[in-house]
Formats: sequence, C-alpha cells, structure tokens
Amino acid sequence: MINQQALEKLVAENRAITATGTVASYIPKLKEKNPSDLGIYVFTEDGAEYGAGDYNTKFTIQSISKIFVFALAVMDNGEREVFKLIGVEPTGDSFNSIANLELKDTHKPYNPMINAGAILATSMIHGNNKKEKFNRILDLIRACCGNSSLEINESVYHSEKDTGDRNRALAYFIKSYGLIEDEVDNVMDTYFKQCSIEVTCRDIAHAAWIISNNGVNKRTGQRVLSQRICSILKTVMFTCGLYDASGSFALDVGMPSKSGVGGGILSTTNTGIGIGVYGPALDQKGNSVAGAAMLKAISRDNGLAIF
Amino acid sequence: MINQQALEKLVAENRAITATGTVASYIPKLKEKNPSDLGIYVFTEDGAEYGAGDYNTKFTIQSISKIFVFALAVMDNGEREVFKLIGVEPTGDSFNSIANLELKDTHKPYNPMINAGAILATSMIHGNNKKEKFNRILDLIRACCGNSSLEINESVYHSEKDTGDRNRALAYFIKSYGLIEDEVDNVMDTYFKQCSIEVTCRDIAHAAWIISNNGVNKRTGQRVLSQRICSILKTVMFTCGLYDASGSFALDVGMPSKSGVGGGILSTTNTGIGIGVYGPALDQKGNSVAGAAMLKAISRDNGLAIF
Amino acid sequence: MINQQALEKLVAENRAITATGTVASYIPKLKEKNPSDLGIYVFTEDGAEYGAGDYNTKFTIQSISKIFVFALAVMDNGEREVFKLIGVEPTGDSFNSIANLELKDTHKPYNPMINAGAILATSMIHGNNKKEKFNRILDLIRACCGNSSLEINESVYHSEKDTGDRNRALAYFIKSYGLIEDEVDNVMDTYFKQCSIEVTCRDIAHAAWIISNNGVNKRTGQRVLSQRICSILKTVMFTCGLYDASGSFALDVGMPSKSGVGGGILSTTNTGIGIGVYGPALDQKGNSVAGAAMLKAISRDNGLAIF
Amino acid sequence: MINQQALEKLVAENRAITATGTVASYIPKLKEKNPSDLGIYVFTEDGAEYGAGDYNTKFTIQSISKIFVFALAVMDNGEREVFKLIGVEPTGDSFNSIANLELKDTHKPYNPMINAGAILATSMIHGNNKKEKFNRILDLIRACCGNSSLEINESVYHSEKDTGDRNRALAYFIKSYGLIEDEVDNVMDTYFKQCSIEVTCRDIAHAAWIISNNGVNKRTGQRVLSQRICSILKTVMFTCGLYDASGSFALDVGMPSKSGVGGGILSTTNTGIGIGVYGPALDQKGNSVAGAAMLKAISRDNGLAIF
Repeated sequence: MINQQALEKLVAENRAITATGTVASYIPKLKEKNPSDLGIYVFTEDGAEYGAGDYNTKFTIQSISKIFVFALAVMDNGEREVFKLIGVEPTGDSFNSIANLELKDTHKPYNPMINAGAILATSMIHGNNKKEKFNRILDLIRACCGNSSLEINESVYHSEKDTGDRNRALAYFIKSYGLIEDEVDNVMDTYFKQCSIEVTCRDIAHAAWIISNNGVNKRTGQRVLSQRICSILKTVMFTCGLYDASGSFALDVGMPSKSGVGGGILSTTNTGIGIGVYGPALDQKGNSVAGAAMLKAISRDNGLAIF
Repeated sequence: MINQQALEKLVAENRAITATGTVASYIPKLKEKNPSDLGIYVFTEDGAEYGAGDYNTKFTIQSISKIFVFALAVMDNGEREVFKLIGVEPTGDSFNSIANLELKDTHKPYNPMINAGAILATSMIHGNNKKEKFNRILDLIRACCGNSSLEINESVYHSEKDTGDRNRALAYFIKSYGLIEDEVDNVMDTYFKQCSIEVTCRDIAHAAWIISNNGVNKRTGQRVLSQRICSILKTVMFTCGLYDASGSFALDVGMPSKSGVGGGILSTTNTGIGIGVYGPALDQKGNSVAGAAMLKAISRDNGLAIF
Repeated sequence: MINQQALEKLVAENRAITATGTVASYIPKLKEKNPSDLGIYVFTEDGAEYGAGDYNTKFTIQSISKIFVFALAVMDNGEREVFKLIGVEPTGDSFNSIANLELKDTHKPYNPMINAGAILATSMIHGNNKKEKFNRILDLIRACCGNSSLEINESVYHSEKDTGDRNRALAYFIKSYGLIEDEVDNVMDTYFKQCSIEVTCRDIAHAAWIISNNGVNKRTGQRVLSQRICSILKTVMFTCGLYDASGSFALDVGMPSKSGVGGGILSTTNTGIGIGVYGPALDQKGNSVAGAAMLKAISRDNGLAIF
Repeated sequence: MINQQALEKLVAENRAITATGTVASYIPKLKEKNPSDLGIYVFTEDGAEYGAGDYNTKFTIQSISKIFVFALAVMDNGEREVFKLIGVEPTGDSFNSIANLELKDTHKPYNPMINAGAILATSMIHGNNKKEKFNRILDLIRACCGNSSLEINESVYHSEKDTGDRNRALAYFIKSYGLIEDEVDNVMDTYFKQCSIEVTCRDIAHAAWIISNNGVNKRTGQRVLSQRICSILKTVMFTCGLYDASGSFALDVGMPSKSGVGGGILSTTNTGIGIGVYGPALDQKGNSVAGAAMLKAISRDNGLAIF
C-alpha cells in the first residue's frame, strides 16, 4: 500500500542508512549537501501523489539527465542513426570508464547511460548553437518533470566545468574516432549544464510517472514522449541505469531506474507508478545508498518488480 | 495472435535468414548440424501448444543449461552464498572472456550466464560425487522441460571434452582464487555433460512456460521452481541472457531469454507464455540468427515485450 | 666498415623495402611525403661523418622529440620528481594507448616514450609561459643537433593541432588525476610544436653522436648533456624507444634508438657512433620500415649491437 | 673494486633491507625460508671468484630457469619457430597476467620471461617424453651452472604442483589457441620441476659468467652456449628480466638480469663478470629486495651498468 503514512515510515526506517554512504566529492559543489537528507515522492496508478522526508529539497539532476538527452537524441536523429554510434549493451565497467573504448574493436560507447555514450548523445542534439541545443534539452526535461521553472544551478555548473577533465578526456577520445562533429568545448558546456539542472523528488517522480504511462500525462491527456521512446528508456534503464550496479539493482528493486551522483534516483514501472527519491549519501558505485534501500523496500512491499 | 498458422508463417518467412549465420564450429560435433534448420514451439497463456518447422529436431542445450544450473546452485546454497561468489552484473564482454576476472579487483565472475560464472555455479551443485551432481542437474532440467527421457548426446559430450581448453583455463583461473573446491576435472566433466543434454524446441518451450508461470505447471498444478527463483532467472536472463548482445536483444525482443551455441533460444514472459526456437546458424555473438529474428517478429506482432 | 660507399650501398639495397610501408596518414600534412625517400647519416667514432640517400631531406622530428623533452624535464625537475609522475617501464601497448592508465592502480604513464608520458614530460618543462617553455625545448634540440637554425614546420604544426584529439584525450585523462598543473591547451600547443620541428638525418645523427659520447661534443669539447642524462636516455630508448616493437628492435638492431612517425630514427651506441635515418614509409607499429632495415644491416655488419 | 672485503661489506650494509620485503607465500614451501638471508657470489673478469653472506644457502631457481629453457627452446627449434609463437616485447603486466593474451589480437605471449611465454617455451623442448624433456633442461642448467649435482627440491616441486592453478589456467588458455601440442599436465609437470631446481649463489653466478663470456667457460675453453643465444638472452633479460620492474631495474642496475621468487637474481655483463645474489625477502613485484639493492650498489661502485 502506497500512501502518506507508508512513505513517512519508509523515510524514517531508512534514514540511518544514509550514514553508510558518502556525498559525491569529485564535484566540489556537491560536497556541500547534507548527507543525512532523504526524501521520496510517488505518483500512484490512480493519480494520487505523496511526498515524505526531504522531498522538497533541490538537488542537481546529474546523470538522470542522460535518459532525457538520449530520448531527445533519438527523437532528433532516429533510432537507426543513434544506435549506429551508441550501443545499448550493459557493461560491467564504471560510469566514466574509457578503457573499453580503446580495447574493443568498435570503439563505440556501450550504452547511453555511461558518460561516454551520454556525451555522444548530447553531441547529437539538434540546434543552431549550443544555447539552442541546451534549451531544447531543458524544455524536454521541464515537460517530463511537469515543471516549467526548472533551471540550472550556476555554481554546480561552474564546479562541473572546473573539474570535468575526465569527461573531456572521454569526449576527445570519442572525437578522435570521428564520432563527434561539434567542438568538444561546446558539447561539454551543454553536458555540464544538463547535469546541473536542479530538481526535486517530485520533478523526477513526475517524469517517471509519464514514462510509466507510456509517455502520456494521465491528468491532461497530453503526450510528452512517444510510446516507443518510453519502451526504449525503460529497457535501457533496466539493463544499464545504475552503472555497474544495474544487475543487482534489477534483482533487488526490479524497476527501470536511473540514478545520478547528485543523490537522485528516478524509478518507473509498467503500471502507471512514478517514483523519485533523493539522498546525497552515495554508495561506492555512485548510487544513493538510502534511496536504493527505500526503493528496495517499496518494491518488495508493493510488488513493483517487473519480474 | 499465436496459432499453428502464424507459427508456420513465421518459420517460412525467416528460414532464409538462416543463410546469414554459421553453425558453431568450435565444438567439431556441432558443425554437423543442418544450417537451414529452423523451428519454433510455443505454449500459450490458455494452455494450448503449437510447433512449426524443425521443432522436433534434437539439439544440445549448451548454454541454456546455465539457467537451470544457476537455479539449482541457488536452491542448494541459498542466494547469499551464490551471490558472494558470482555477480549478477551484465558485462559487455564475450561469453568466454577471462580478462576482466584479472583486471577487476573482485576477480568475481560478472554473472552466471557467462562461462566463468556458469562453471562456478556448476561447482556449487550439491552431491556426493560428480555422477550424483550431474544427475541432480539432469533431473531438474527434465522436470522443467517436462520430459523425463532427456539424455546427453555422447558424441557432443566427448567433442566438448576434447576441445574445452578455454573453459578449463577459466576454471583453473577461478580455482586459483580459491573459489572452486572440487577438482577442475570433475567440475568440467559435469559442465561438459550439462551442455550436451539433447532437447527439442518443445522441451525448452515447456521450461519457459514453467518459468513464465512463476514455477508452476499450470496443467498439473505441480510446483517445479519457486517463485523467487523464477523472478531471479527472468531478471538475469533479461540483463545477461544473450551474452554481449543482451542489451540489443532486450530492445528488439524484450522477453527474458537464454541462448545456446547449439542453436536454441528459450524465451519467457510474465504472462504464461513459453517459447522455444531452434536454428543452428548463429550470428557473430553466438546466438541463433533466424531464431532471434522469429522472436523479434512474434514479440512485435503479439506485444510480448516486457516494456 | 662504415664509409661513404657502404652507406650508399645500404640505401640502394634497402630502398625497395620502402614499398612495404605506408606514410603516416593520421596527420594529413605527413601524407604528402614521398614514400620512397630513404636516407642515412652517420658520425663515426673517429669524428668522420657520412651521408647517403635522402639525408638532406627535411622531415618533422615527431616522437624523437620525446627524448629531448624528457631530458629537459629531468634537468628542470630532477629524477626523483619526474619518476614520481612518469614510469620507466616498457609496455606492450601502442604509443597512444589510454586503457592501462585507467586499468592500473597507479594511473601513471608507463614511460616517457609513449604519448601519455611524453605529454606529461612536456607539462613539466620550466618557463614563465608556453612560448618560453617551447623555446627552451627548441634550444636543447638545436644544441643536441648542432644546428641553431632548426624551426618548426608551420603547416605540420597546424595539421597536428587540427587532428590531435587523441592526444588531448590523453592529456585530459592525466590531468583528471591531478598530474598536470597547466592548462591542457597550453601543454598541447607546446607538444604539437615540439613534434613539428624540422630536422634532417644529419641533425638527429649529431644528437645521437652527442649521446653516444656521454653528452660531450667531441669536436668542441663542449658538454651538451650530463653523463647521467645520457645514461638514462640510452636505457629508456633501448627498452621503450620503438613503442611496442622495442623488444624485437633491441634483438634485431641492438642500439638504443628512438623513432618518430615523421619517418626518422635516431640510433646511438656506447662507442661514439651516432646514426640518423629517414624513410617516411612506416610499418604497422609506426616505425620507418626501410630505416629499421638499414639499421639492422649496419648493426650486424659492424657489430654495433650492445649485446 | 670487487673483492672479498667489498662483498662482505655489501652484504653487511644491505642486510637490514631484507626487513622491508616478504618471503613468497603463494607457494607454501617457499614461506619456510629465512627472510633475513642475504648472499652474493661473483666471478670477475680475471677469473677470480668471491662469495659473501649466505652464498652457500640453497634456494629454488624458480623463474631464473626461464632463461635456460628459452635458450634450449631456441636451440631445439630455431629462432624463427620460437618467435612465431613467443614475442620478445616487454610488457607492463605482472608475471602471471592473462588479460592481454585475450585482449590483444595476436593472443601471443609477450615474451619468454613472463609465465605464459615460459610455459610455451617449456612445451617446445624436444624429447620423447616428459622425463627426457626435463632431463635435457636439467642438463643445460647444470652445464651453465658448472654443477653436475643440481637436483630438484621434491617438497617445493610438490608444493608448486599443489598450488599451480594460475599457471594451469595460462597453459590451457594458450592451448586453446592451438599453441601447445602436448598435454597440459605434462608441460606443467616439467614446468614445476624446472622451477624447483635447487641452486646456490655460486651456481647462478657461474651461469651469468658463462653468458657474459658469450657462452664460453673461460677456464676450460668449453663452449656451453652459442654467442647468438647469449646475445638474445642478455637482450631479453635487459628488457624483460624483472617482470614489470624491468625498466626501473635497467635504470638502477643496468645489467641484464633475471630474478626468481625463490629470492635469486642472476646478473650478467658484457665484460666477463657474473653475479648471483640470494635474498628470499621480496618486494611487491616479486624481486629480492635486498638482492636488488646489492646489485644497484655493486653496479654503481664498479661501473657495471651497460649504459
């Protein structure tokens, strides 16, 4: 049963787990977050919505942006073009791995949920210049989140830019194989901006709810994403959404999900439920440790696992 | 609509695709198979069953055995013990890869669907000796396939044994980290035997039907596998069942599946449908090329994809 | 016996081998070189010098610059500081490999003869700005080559800059581990410039002669490099000077050598002999194919191998 | 100056360094050695010989056997045949690495000084059966060491056999590419035996002296190895003799050397000097820590470095 009381209990029971994680430190600005924060927001099948804990706290979307940018890349270029450049195979490597790009004959990013594939997806977004490209990304994220006031957090954006050398290495590596047309600086600027968009649990829960309903906002009847895009996103999230913890997350939680080092996890279903959690204390693989624990519990208690 | 006529049409329409694949050659005995063979067998939600094409041709189960041996390893040792030794993370590497066992700090096979993890699972099967261990595996496969007369193909078994050096390398490598207690020769003997069990499309479709029904034989009411085991198997098949083509298969077909280099693919669902296909002509990643094409078509035409 | 006649014969006998190689294509400007060019220049123990073939043709120094920049990095920072950041271990990987920087725990370039290590060495050169840093490199190369008129080839320099994304990837990767202080753009500008310095066979033969004489110009008595630097350079060239062909070159030729994709190879000895060869047709590992053949012959005929 | 007094001083000054290392533990029998043991033995250019410290203590030859087995493989099969199967490129990987055998297209062991290449060399030794093959290896080692009473240490041999799974994995991996004809069990039995031959510092110093004199015993005038074999051995030892510490050893010591996890290091020169050291306390890369320190000191004090 998912209701206000259940969510309050969930947050209360899992808050202590935040102590076992660490706030992301590789982007200095992220370190300022309160490690014991924990929040959850749920849209249910029947259109109700509930939030508990720090569900109103803003955090940067980080890698959760990858699903929207990937969706937009497919919308802009078609599946065929996108899958020519970016694979859909899960990989056992960490999110910022570069080794396999060299070691495998294809030199093709494994999937759009790891940084290499996500940077490539960003480079494929249509637009006359980087401002236009970013605005199109922001518009889609706003539409999915049902929140037209989403903006980037400027100080996180600058912090990402200052410390984004590993991502630049990935971008230049991909570009050296001729896969990126634009200037790396432009692509990375858009990439750092998309990661710096600030959201709350409700925002990402709303997007999860849209995806769960195959792209349609059940309240307004408006279509935000095509059914096919939602099917692709759910599949890719299920197999690759939590980096090199995707497999164990599929087993433990069983919902298509995407995490970000900002502490958010977006989880969706086939049944019209959308969930957003936030907890900036991360486990070693970069996923919200208490957020994942709450998702495991709510999935188990309500039979939300796909299998 | 799944019926006799639809399946006949499916085989007819996809038979030509067999010409684009190659029969597995690394085990000499497998080379003798007819590359243009193609068959399918389906158990439907309402208890009907249909077969078309070469659905009656026997082939060796090969890697499809991995799901049953993994199930038995979990039944014998518990999830906790098994997951201590074997991961559940998909990997972008090929089925017989050894590199990551060395390069990653854990030295732990990524998942039970690649050879390293499957060999380790075999080593965990309970029994007083290798004969007893193999018989317990055979019994479970017979029960799942609903066919008590399944036996190994002796000449394939000997062929596997003669050419199994890469698998022996994997076994010794894992043993060097103390993960295998038994003698490698014993474990490999059981492993080669389990791969050599002969089945038909109906046999594996039956097993897929059992798994789809959460472990219960809907006709007899008998429970063959626990619900939890079925949930684990479907999850692991979905994320890792087709080696380094698992991701694109999840997108194209969308059913939890397991392939073998003998040419079989077992595909299951959440809705009581079980499918077995056979076509020994394989694509470059070791999966039945026309079998996969049939699964893609039947999934698309009947909405069988999980997402 | 090394004399004019012997060198003429050497060039004549090995010219045909140029047809088995290919001019470097990854830097467009390099492609314009004549693939059948072949030249050699030798300074002998007794102070004589001979040139044959296209010994007067200018070519860009490319990776041969790595030994001078490494020498200068050691002179500027001391062995201890340099070896903290850059290893001296040969590696079986290709010159522009990035994989092991990630896979190995140290994240430390293996040696200063591969691109990653060379870029790091460039970043360690002292100077108030990039112009001053490059001029210090140019001065050392001029001094070693005994040619104060050496300059960069502007069009090659711009071509390198236009196509240097793989090297930028290496630089950003290294910087992401905090090993590079300066801006990557500055470091790469200096790196591309140092690679674009134009030399002839005589220039690099002169430098080889200086190194062979432990850093002293035997004619003028002037010390150009310290004895210790020469000892380090010879050791590192012998073990790592020809990328992933260093071992077979050590066996076939047996002289400490450094090759560049411009087609040059600098070869030195312990006995006061310095050799420079030029042939832009390269083998698959990026070394002058006919140049290496000449070095093998001259080494064998004159007992120049160190072992 | 190398004399009795100098060697005594060397041992005295470096004995304390033994405390910074650890006796090899992966072969249980090796653990029983006294970690503070340290000895050295030198044959000088003028035919004198001196020993100091624990130069009379027996230890197993371990990987030092690789140079003799490689020499015999070349003598039995010719350079061309051997280099078809085994490379001569140094590698930055550890001695028992398997990853690159898979990741590189050639699937060829990098060089005969790492385990994969050494096992392959052992498999190429001529003989009608494994006993004959091993006896031919033992005979060559006896001849080089000038000691016809060398035998294997039975308990180390059995200990190696009991714990040799990683080496068996390497052997089966190589065999899976068709590179080994014989049964793996036979090859490994010979390999474990050759590693278990017991020697003293004098024995390996004698072999180093033979190699330094290009294969001739200067006292008897007898030729033990061909000049070409000695040239090959010195080159390969210099570039690959100390595993992934070969490069820094070349810089620090500068003598062609081969180490073994039994604690021995054989060091040779071009000038008729042969050195054997023993100290079972190893550094992290598997080389005698105090033995290497003594070699560094004796090289520096007597100008023994090749460059």
